[in-house]
Amino acid sequence: MQQLCCLKVKKLKRHKINRCLIVCDGYIGKRLLNIYLKKNEGSSFAIISADGASNVLHLLNIKPRYIIGDLDSIFPDVLSSFINSGVSIKRIIEQEHNDLEKCIMFSISKGMNDITVIGYGGNRIDHTINNFSILKKYYKKCSIRFIDDEFEVFMINKKTEFDYKRGEIISIMGFPKADGIVTEGLQYPLKNESLEIGKREGALNRAISDKIKISLKKGELLIFKKHFNTF
Amino acid sequence: MQQLCCLKVKKLKRHKINRCLIVCDGYIGKRLLNIYLKKNEGSSFAIISADGASNVLHLLNIKPRYIIGDLDSIFPDVLSSFINSGVSIKRIIEQEHNDLEKCIMFSISKGMNDITVIGYGGNRIDHTINNFSILKKYYKKCSIRFIDDEFEVFMINKKTEFDYKRGEIISIMGFPKADGIVTEGLQYPLKNESLEIGKREGALNRAISDKIKISLKKGELLIFKKHFNTF
Repeated sequence: MQQLCCLKVKKLKRHKINRCLIVCDGYIGKRLLNIYLKKNEGSSFAIISADGASNVLHLLNIKPRYIIGDLDSIFPDVLSSFINSGVSIKRIIEQEHNDLEKCIMFSISKGMNDITVIGYGGNRIDHTINNFSILKKYYKKCSIRFIDDEFEVFMINKKTEFDYKRGEIISIMGFPKADGIVTEGLQYPLKNESLEIGKREGALNRAISDKIKISLKKGELLIFKKHFNTF
Repeated sequence: MQQLCCLKVKKLKRHKINRCLIVCDGYIGKRLLNIYLKKNEGSSFAIISADGASNVLHLLNIKPRYIIGDLDSIFPDVLSSFINSGVSIKRIIEQEHNDLEKCIMFSISKGMNDITVIGYGGNRIDHTINNFSILKKYYKKCSIRFIDDEFEVFMINKKTEFDYKRGEIISIMGFPKADGIVTEGLQYPLKNESLEIGKREGALNRAISDKIKISLKKGELLIFKKHFNTF
C-alpha cells in the first residue's frame, strides 16, 4: 500500500505542470503564438490569459487553461464561451496589482515557476513600462521572460551565457543600475563597466561570436536578445 | 549705428527658434503628426528627423529642417531628395549615443531647449526602453516630452500641475524611485508615499478632478498623461 502511494505521488509529481505561458492584453503576434504552440506541442504547460487577452485567444481559437483579472476587458460572449468550454476563471478585483502581476502571483501559487509572457507591450506605453517593473519584481522568485516577435527579454543579477548568431543585435541595460559588467562575444565589449538608466545605455550592441557571456558584480541588468524562434 | 545693431540683435532674438519636434524611427502616427503640424502652423519650430524617420516624413510629404544620425537607415533616394530640397544633413557616426540622443544634443547646441519627441517607441522594445533612459538623462537640461497617439510622457523631480479630464487615466512611475509623493485629484491618492521600479508601480490611476497636482520630495517620477491633442 505504501508502495502504491509512493507511486501515485511520483506520478503526480511527474505530471505536475511547472511551465506556463501568460498572454497579456498588449500586442499579441499571431505568428509568434503559433510558433510557440507548435514548438511546445506535446509538452506540459498551461496557458494563462490576462483578462482582455482572452478576446484575441478566442478569435485565434486558442483555449487557455485559466483566465485571470478583474474581467473588465473580456467580452461577455467570450467569457461565456470559455466558461462553457471548461476554462477556469479567477476573478481578482483589486487595484494594487495589474493583470500581469495577478497572473504571475497565481502561477507561482500553482507551482508554475517557469513563466513566459507574451503580449506584454505594444499598446499602451504606461502598461509596457509597468510590466518591466513587474519583471524586475519577480525575476528572482521564478524563471520569467518576456517574448515578442523578435526579442526575448529577461533580467540577471549575476551572469548568463547563451549561444547566438554572429552579427545579430543584443541590447543590455542597467535596470536601474549594474556595476562591474564584463561581456564576452560583443562588438562593443564592457570591461568591468557600469550601465545605468539616465546615465549610460548599452543598447545597440552586436554579437561577434556564436557564444555570448555577460556577468556583473552588483545591481541588475535587462537583457534583450533575439530568440530566433527557439523557445 | 549702435541703435541699428541693437535692433538687429533684437530681431534675431525675436526670431530665434527655441522649439523643435524630433521625429524618431519608431511608430510615427500620421494622424498625430498632422494634428501637431496643424496646431503649430504659423509658430516657429524646427523638425529634426532622426535618420530612418526621414523615410516616413518623405512618404508623408513633410520636409524636416535637419536630418541627424549615422544615416544607415535613410533610403538613398530619400536622402538625395531631401538634400536637393535644402534640408540640412548632419551625419554623426559614433556608437556611444543613439539617434534620439544625437538629435537632442544637436537641438540643445542650437538653443532649441523646448523639445517634443514623436516616434520614440512602438517598434523595437530595446530602443523604447533606451529612449526612456535618454529622457531621464536630459529632462533637467531642457524641456522634453515624448508624445504618442494618446499619451504625453515627461519626468519631474519636484512638482507638476495641469488641467485634466475627470475619469481619464494617468500613470505615474518612480524612475527608478520617488519618495514623498503627494497627489491631488487622483482616484488612488498618494499621501507621502514611494514608488519604485521593481517594488511598487503607480500605473492605472484615474483623475477625479479637472485639476491634477503631483509633487515629490526625493527621486524622479515619470508621468504618463493623456494629451487630448492639445500641444
